[in-house]
Amino acid sequence: MGETIVRNKQVILASYSNEGPVTQDHLNVIETQLDIKGCKHGEVTVKNMWISVDPYLRARMKNLGTGLFLQSFKLGQPIVSRSVSKVVASADGQFKEGDIVYGYCDVAEYAVLSGSGLTKLNADVAPLPHYLGLLGSSGLTAYIGLMKIGEPKPGEQVFVSTAAGAVGLVVGQLAKINGCRVVGATSSDEKVKVLKEEFGFDDAFNYKSETDWDAALSKYFPTGIDIYFENVGGRMLEAVLNHINMNARIPVCGMISQYNEDWKQTYGVRNLLNLVVRCAKMQGFIVGHHLDHMDQFREEMISYTKQGKLKYRVDIKQGIDSFLEAFNSMFSGKNIGKTVVQL
Amino acid sequence: MGETIVRNKQVILASYSNEGPVTQDHLNVIETQLDIKGCKHGEVTVKNMWISVDPYLRARMKNLGTGLFLQSFKLGQPIVSRSVSKVVASADGQFKEGDIVYGYCDVAEYAVLSGSGLTKLNADVAPLPHYLGLLGSSGLTAYIGLMKIGEPKPGEQVFVSTAAGAVGLVVGQLAKINGCRVVGATSSDEKVKVLKEEFGFDDAFNYKSETDWDAALSKYFPTGIDIYFENVGGRMLEAVLNHINMNARIPVCGMISQYNEDWKQTYGVRNLLNLVVRCAKMQGFIVGHHLDHMDQFREEMISYTKQGKLKYRVDIKQGIDSFLEAFNSMFSGKNIGKTVVQL
Repeated sequence: MGETIVRNKQVILASYSNEGPVTQDHLNVIETQLDIKGCKHGEVTVKNMWISVDPYLRARMKNLGTGLFLQSFKLGQPIVSRSVSKVVASADGQFKEGDIVYGYCDVAEYAVLSGSGLTKLNADVAPLPHYLGLLGSSGLTAYIGLMKIGEPKPGEQVFVSTAAGAVGLVVGQLAKINGCRVVGATSSDEKVKVLKEEFGFDDAFNYKSETDWDAALSKYFPTGIDIYFENVGGRMLEAVLNHINMNARIPVCGMISQYNEDWKQTYGVRNLLNLVVRCAKMQGFIVGHHLDHMDQFREEMISYTKQGKLKYRVDIKQGIDSFLEAFNSMFSGKNIGKTVVQL
Repeated sequence: MGETIVRNKQVILASYSNEGPVTQDHLNVIETQLDIKGCKHGEVTVKNMWISVDPYLRARMKNLGTGLFLQSFKLGQPIVSRSVSKVVASADGQFKEGDIVYGYCDVAEYAVLSGSGLTKLNADVAPLPHYLGLLGSSGLTAYIGLMKIGEPKPGEQVFVSTAAGAVGLVVGQLAKINGCRVVGATSSDEKVKVLKEEFGFDDAFNYKSETDWDAALSKYFPTGIDIYFENVGGRMLEAVLNHINMNARIPVCGMISQYNEDWKQTYGVRNLLNLVVRCAKMQGFIVGHHLDHMDQFREEMISYTKQGKLKYRVDIKQGIDSFLEAFNSMFSGKNIGKTVVQL
């Protein structure tokens, strides 16, 4: 038996961050060691290749007793995210060394995982980081929210907040594929241009320069909004609620503007009565509960991609040490598409 | 031809009331005259017998340009509500003198109406005011919200705000009939007693004396809430959102605490992110869009009533002059069951 002990850098939750930005006070990179042959029956050891960086992780870095129910990460332990990894040792008959797998994994260079939570990926079908974005949870979030909850009909008016993000890009293009008119909100003029020229949005606006959102929505949606794909919350949701049409649908996959705040400090939405007078539905969902749609979803996405109807962008940061920077880039509004860390 | 001119007292909107209580400054009773034989082809003249008094009318007494979309009543014109009336003259072949009809009508002693908006009632089936409450829009609101949007399953936990109101009484009893555990919130100890002893609620609490609603909901729902029949809004909704279970449903038929305020002055709900983490649905509805369920609904209600499973109360005020008092009684929390004015 050769030497099987490796250096294993991990991103550890050093302290909870209930409000404000996440810093090195909260997330530390520590260096540990791992025996890659140390996996027990039913387990595999993986070397991470691509790690998904998602806004919802913010909520798991808090330890609030009330209000929000996402399970907190454990102090002193590696945080966990979706990843694409290579099997480097296996004690699970389903996997062998060299297999590429997808699953929840420590944000670390290596990890020992139960084989039961992993699925094999075929690297020939699509670029591997796409399994975290377009073909992964971000894309599936767009698909479930828009197609299963939103149920778009041709000619309907669709509004997407954070339109240039990992989810929003897919929502907008899927809405177009389904015959809707789609307008996105994003945080810079450059991203407005990209949405319209590269991703086929009918229109888009910079919510940081067009600060009267009520006026902006009147301008971009003179006939009102049928589907609002909600992933911002707060003041934007309130603005939208004054522009929804009868029988509007509001799938809610997240509220990025709310993750950085204790819930009692967040912006309160005052005009929910519009849900009644417009007979509208607002429905939250967690993509992990809809994995039964994954195969059909991937098939459709790959087909649209081949037909040139669907494009995507991945924002790649290098190395485990860049995780914190990658994470914070999502909240500063600089990224386009899916943020991943490549190891 | 005999004398057919009658005195016709009407409740007129004298000025809009965008906030605060509605007073005689806003609603006036004026005396006019009507020729009861003056109805034209397709019209009937009715003498009102019972007029429905509903919280949603509050929103129609405002003239806000933004935010809420219920159509405002016209200044100087009679306000309009559902009523049970007797035909006193008819120029519509479908109706004859003496018919009892149900429809939208001026809040007045007499009115001329298009026959096309009216349906005939059979006074032998149920007491006539029940067609405005248990068998009318209030009961149908309970039925659509609980059964069609809430979809209750045996053993589920149901919470009803304003439980002793015209809608809440029916929601609670329908939830019991469907095998749920049901707890109501109401505004006095007397009404708590009535809900438990007369209407079969498993429990109830006085939200004016138990003011820590978070603690109250922890006590009354140790395993969380599956269905919240929402007709309050604001602070109560926020409290409930911290106690909902996975896949909770929140049918919303109104937000009585919000009708008296300009929407910008209303309480903002800060924890909507719970909809995401609990995969919950909040859905507004207007009962007038579900009239296709009316026959099935009435059949079920009458059957439950005959079996002794469903009881009801009507709070009757006398005479057109009592309309304003009847209307305000709903907001002061004194009424039990359906509020109607008898002429």
